[in-house]
Amino acid sequence: MKVGIVGGTGYTGVELLRLLVQHPEVELTAVTSRSEAGQQVHSLYPNLRGHLDLPFSEPSEDTLSECDLVFFATPNGVAMKMVPALLDKGVKVIDLAADFRIKDIPTWEQWYGQSHACPAAVEEAVYGLPEVNRDAIAKARLVANPGCYPTAVQLGFLPLIEAGVVDKQRLIADAKSGVSGAGRQASVGMLLCEASESLKAYGVPGHRHLPEIKQGLTNAAGDEVGFTFVPHLTPMIRGIHATCYATVTASDIDLQSLFENRFADEPFVDVMEAGSHPETRSVKGSNMCRIAVHQPQGGDTAVILSVIDNLVKGAAGQAVHNMNIMFGFEETLGIEQVALMP
Amino acid sequence: MKVGIVGGTGYTGVELLRLLVQHPEVELTAVTSRSEAGQQVHSLYPNLRGHLDLPFSEPSEDTLSECDLVFFATPNGVAMKMVPALLDKGVKVIDLAADFRIKDIPTWEQWYGQSHACPAAVEEAVYGLPEVNRDAIAKARLVANPGCYPTAVQLGFLPLIEAGVVDKQRLIADAKSGVSGAGRQASVGMLLCEASESLKAYGVPGHRHLPEIKQGLTNAAGDEVGFTFVPHLTPMIRGIHATCYATVTASDIDLQSLFENRFADEPFVDVMEAGSHPETRSVKGSNMCRIAVHQPQGGDTAVILSVIDNLVKGAAGQAVHNMNIMFGFEETLGIEQVALMP
Amino acid sequence: MKVGIVGGTGYTGVELLRLLVQHPEVELTAVTSRSEAGQQVHSLYPNLRGHLDLPFSEPSEDTLSECDLVFFATPNGVAMKMVPALLDKGVKVIDLAADFRIKDIPTWEQWYGQSHACPAAVEEAVYGLPEVNRDAIAKARLVANPGCYPTAVQLGFLPLIEAGVVDKQRLIADAKSGVSGAGRQASVGMLLCEASESLKAYGVPGHRHLPEIKQGLTNAAGDEVGFTFVPHLTPMIRGIHATCYATVTASDIDLQSLFENRFADEPFVDVMEAGSHPETRSVKGSNMCRIAVHQPQGGDTAVILSVIDNLVKGAAGQAVHNMNIMFGFEETLGIEQVALMP
Amino acid sequence: MKVGIVGGTGYTGVELLRLLVQHPEVELTAVTSRSEAGQQVHSLYPNLRGHLDLPFSEPSEDTLSECDLVFFATPNGVAMKMVPALLDKGVKVIDLAADFRIKDIPTWEQWYGQSHACPAAVEEAVYGLPEVNRDAIAKARLVANPGCYPTAVQLGFLPLIEAGVVDKQRLIADAKSGVSGAGRQASVGMLLCEASESLKAYGVPGHRHLPEIKQGLTNAAGDEVGFTFVPHLTPMIRGIHATCYATVTASDIDLQSLFENRFADEPFVDVMEAGSHPETRSVKGSNMCRIAVHQPQGGDTAVILSVIDNLVKGAAGQAVHNMNIMFGFEETLGIEQVALMP
Repeated sequence: MKVGIVGGTGYTGVELLRLLVQHPEVELTAVTSRSEAGQQVHSLYPNLRGHLDLPFSEPSEDTLSECDLVFFATPNGVAMKMVPALLDKGVKVIDLAADFRIKDIPTWEQWYGQSHACPAAVEEAVYGLPEVNRDAIAKARLVANPGCYPTAVQLGFLPLIEAGVVDKQRLIADAKSGVSGAGRQASVGMLLCEASESLKAYGVPGHRHLPEIKQGLTNAAGDEVGFTFVPHLTPMIRGIHATCYATVTASDIDLQSLFENRFADEPFVDVMEAGSHPETRSVKGSNMCRIAVHQPQGGDTAVILSVIDNLVKGAAGQAVHNMNIMFGFEETLGIEQVALMP
Repeated sequence: MKVGIVGGTGYTGVELLRLLVQHPEVELTAVTSRSEAGQQVHSLYPNLRGHLDLPFSEPSEDTLSECDLVFFATPNGVAMKMVPALLDKGVKVIDLAADFRIKDIPTWEQWYGQSHACPAAVEEAVYGLPEVNRDAIAKARLVANPGCYPTAVQLGFLPLIEAGVVDKQRLIADAKSGVSGAGRQASVGMLLCEASESLKAYGVPGHRHLPEIKQGLTNAAGDEVGFTFVPHLTPMIRGIHATCYATVTASDIDLQSLFENRFADEPFVDVMEAGSHPETRSVKGSNMCRIAVHQPQGGDTAVILSVIDNLVKGAAGQAVHNMNIMFGFEETLGIEQVALMP
Repeated sequence: MKVGIVGGTGYTGVELLRLLVQHPEVELTAVTSRSEAGQQVHSLYPNLRGHLDLPFSEPSEDTLSECDLVFFATPNGVAMKMVPALLDKGVKVIDLAADFRIKDIPTWEQWYGQSHACPAAVEEAVYGLPEVNRDAIAKARLVANPGCYPTAVQLGFLPLIEAGVVDKQRLIADAKSGVSGAGRQASVGMLLCEASESLKAYGVPGHRHLPEIKQGLTNAAGDEVGFTFVPHLTPMIRGIHATCYATVTASDIDLQSLFENRFADEPFVDVMEAGSHPETRSVKGSNMCRIAVHQPQGGDTAVILSVIDNLVKGAAGQAVHNMNIMFGFEETLGIEQVALMP
Repeated sequence: MKVGIVGGTGYTGVELLRLLVQHPEVELTAVTSRSEAGQQVHSLYPNLRGHLDLPFSEPSEDTLSECDLVFFATPNGVAMKMVPALLDKGVKVIDLAADFRIKDIPTWEQWYGQSHACPAAVEEAVYGLPEVNRDAIAKARLVANPGCYPTAVQLGFLPLIEAGVVDKQRLIADAKSGVSGAGRQASVGMLLCEASESLKAYGVPGHRHLPEIKQGLTNAAGDEVGFTFVPHLTPMIRGIHATCYATVTASDIDLQSLFENRFADEPFVDVMEAGSHPETRSVKGSNMCRIAVHQPQGGDTAVILSVIDNLVKGAAGQAVHNMNIMFGFEETLGIEQVALMP
């Protein structure tokens, strides 16, 4: 099948390339970048030398419409302008940005600070969290690939909320991310000298992933949840660690079994033994989400630890997973890499 | 004044040395280490070359009893065996380990896994958090220097609890520490290859700093608090970031003013402007605690961000602060270093 | 084919496992560790959860002799005691330690501080640098897998020496390694707090890889070379950067072409365009060696930059490459991973 | 004395501020920045909160001419336009950029890609390496503060060259720098995600510090030296490690004594015991240069290891040292900080 990538110069773009150049069913036919058009992709990303012989091209509807599938790894607000035309020509689309994630258009416009260009596509789009929407993804023309924090946090809370065993009004997610989540734009704050050997919270008054997570948890709960989200920037390249807090309201509930049962058939969620503390490095470069379940000192506070690689399960890997589902391939095809450790 | 350090080879020991070799009122007369006795201190810590000409010595009661003050920077359980004899000889003591922090002896014995050798000294000891116990410290013979997490977390919660404006039964501290908190012992888990480029929670079922924090918050609250504590290991050398969550129960309370007023006269607590996100590097090598106060989206969840350098305000710097108070020096003497940035 | 690994708990061991669990021709039948026997391999290395269901076993000649190939990822001095018996039973062996690398037994004994247990096997062993010894490797029963520094440095110097275009008496290699080269043993010097945010040379008076490199360069030169080797410890997990200096004695030699021609058919050596500066991260997790060739300001000093991942091309990846050659598989089978970037 | 800083927003600027706010003889009267004028300095650098109450101001000749001394911590090419007017008004100047370092104007113009605005000032300027030019610095109106690499490399080679004991035509410096040497400008290459967990050489065809070092070594040698310089970018914030190679031509020379004698009276050069390997972290935040001297395997290659903190001895600390000399203060005043370790 022919695959195109729009916006191949960022970190999610290069991570898609890493996975797709070795995917047995995929032929990459276009990787677009206005700024780098004409230049070999591997000249920007030397890790691809010997694996990909393709120059960046200008994003062109003609070229892209010859693809079976196009991934958008573009800044927010780009895909929504190009997607309708591609869908019209029968091209399927997976957007790794946020253009189609939030169903409520005013909410999207408030958090992303722009008018939405195609609300109809938002309505059609399927939120691409396979652990929730597998069947809909299989039939979708347009998939909104989840954000990185939303993937880690939702997988941590969903079993509790679906089972109705916690207070849905007091959910707290304290999340820690590596710096690659901020992308490859030059910015003072993400310089090694600014971001290494330090740690800080950011976006405490409000972060764009808050409404996305809240939408997912609210869908699972049936009514609106109360949710506090505090992201932190941590001095590493890859990895998200979400520490999820909830007050257990059910008596005699075995949280460990609840999680194991919920994810028993999921190829990319690994519920670890009771008492575990997953490390983000255990999923570095891998599409796995590892989860551990705690109830400290037997109290009524559940503490769920959920780790992913933000660029894989939190972006490119999950996108390929969605592709596999959409096109009927084995779900794990091309995304079974073992994490790099150490 | 003559000062001795027992256990000078660990990270709190060398940090004490960094501060004391430049303290204008201090003459270092003994730095003890059984394993390194006879060797120059600066041969182990070359940063001290040119600043200190003193060999490690065997810990000897005779030598130490000639000091006006002895710091213990030893593993837990060492100081409690040596302190009574020193106090008898009129030597004042500051213990940087945990031997005298917990007033309830059975609790201490449960968490530290050993019998306590001198409960009487525990009773006498003053918990050395200057922002709470300044007057008692000034009169103390024996000061129990607080732990690193307890310092950051208590300073984050105390104004809320003292003012009675939050639900004392649902306090959560999600804390992140650099690796130096684990000390200088050889251990696989703290190797650069294991601890860098990764992040994990640890001790979720229970951490020794939990009862220490709970004791401090309970003292402030007047009755026992409900408290969940989740520490995380993060890939940096120094720094603690405590993210403290509480449910606000008071209406019309201005949390920003509450914190500013509480710490207005404190030389080592810096309440930042509303909306701030303190970075741990802003206190690297400094004795300052920086705090920011948030109430996201105007809800009833208070989020307090509190950062310290675990080796300074969380250990050696606070110990020198206590020394200054005990001996009537200017409180800030010798501990006004500007943080190293970048 | 059945494969065993002796000493599977170190970094070269886990890296071998990462590669072998996904190698299409390999069935892992034994991973031995005295200290961890009985425990699942993935309990020590959670990145292997879901990829390998095998406990560590005691090293037993019976079990190992049923393998077609055994890798030794043991400390120096272990393999030499076990290898002869395995060879006698028809098992092929690749040793990732140094037991069979140095042909001159007194030299080996001097640098490794022990008597050699089986000089006859040393004589038989083939030095497993495929770019030099491909044909001999194909026929070998016993392969001595090269050290990490020796791989990077020899590939940097060999074209110059084979072509006879530099002064063989004044070769200098200034090499920089990540910390994983030191292995997974608990040691103070390799703690994150000791090794991060710092850089130092070590072993300047003499390092064990010096005689190994000198042997290889001397073989290529035809007579003994003069060689200075200075390794440095750098604050990262993986990667070696060798900066190789030589004085060009030939006139009108095009060094760029010399290198391109020498490695034209090599699947795992990538000679970059003139003027390049390879980054170690461009080979992180990959079996590639990338080389750039410089002659600054048109002078007579050649500066060759050679980067590898010390655990892959410098250890486990090269070992699998050797396995592929020994067993007649496609040389690149199972070791074509794209480097993880960022 | 009144001191001004032009260009206070970069890393050398904030490091100057860290040192000067605690210097007992200095009153900071102006810190200029066009882009940040009006904003408090500590709002950009929160480590200065509580230590400095001064806003950034527009660079104005009127304000600056009231100073006794002005430091320029500006990009190359700025100081040369403002310095003559300040000198005319009796203000002394220390330039931390490169405008006055190279005596040969065409050489400067070639490497810095611009015409020089005031060659006369270059002629007057004293190169501020105290270990070479102490007396001239004491009398200078204008000091050209040395570059970071040039400081570490010259101190490593000078004793050898002054004593005439090495081949002056084959000097090689392989230097490794932390990322702060690249300054605080937003650039993709210095992002944490690009520069951490990796190492690379750069500027091998030619680096601006090459002519500066060559000038210094040539001055010491009496005639032009042959010099190869290869800088490397390493994944840490601070620190330079210069590994200097030279061929010893003198027989029976004791290099260790040579270095100890040369620097016996220098407060900021520490010649370590024979066999040492200085770590960059042993000078982190300190103005010290530590040097170790090796002659591996008794051969004729001298290997000198020289480490500094690029922002202190390689920039701001050396500038304050020069200030102390120019104004007759104790040389070590205000720059005796102990390195932060760990």
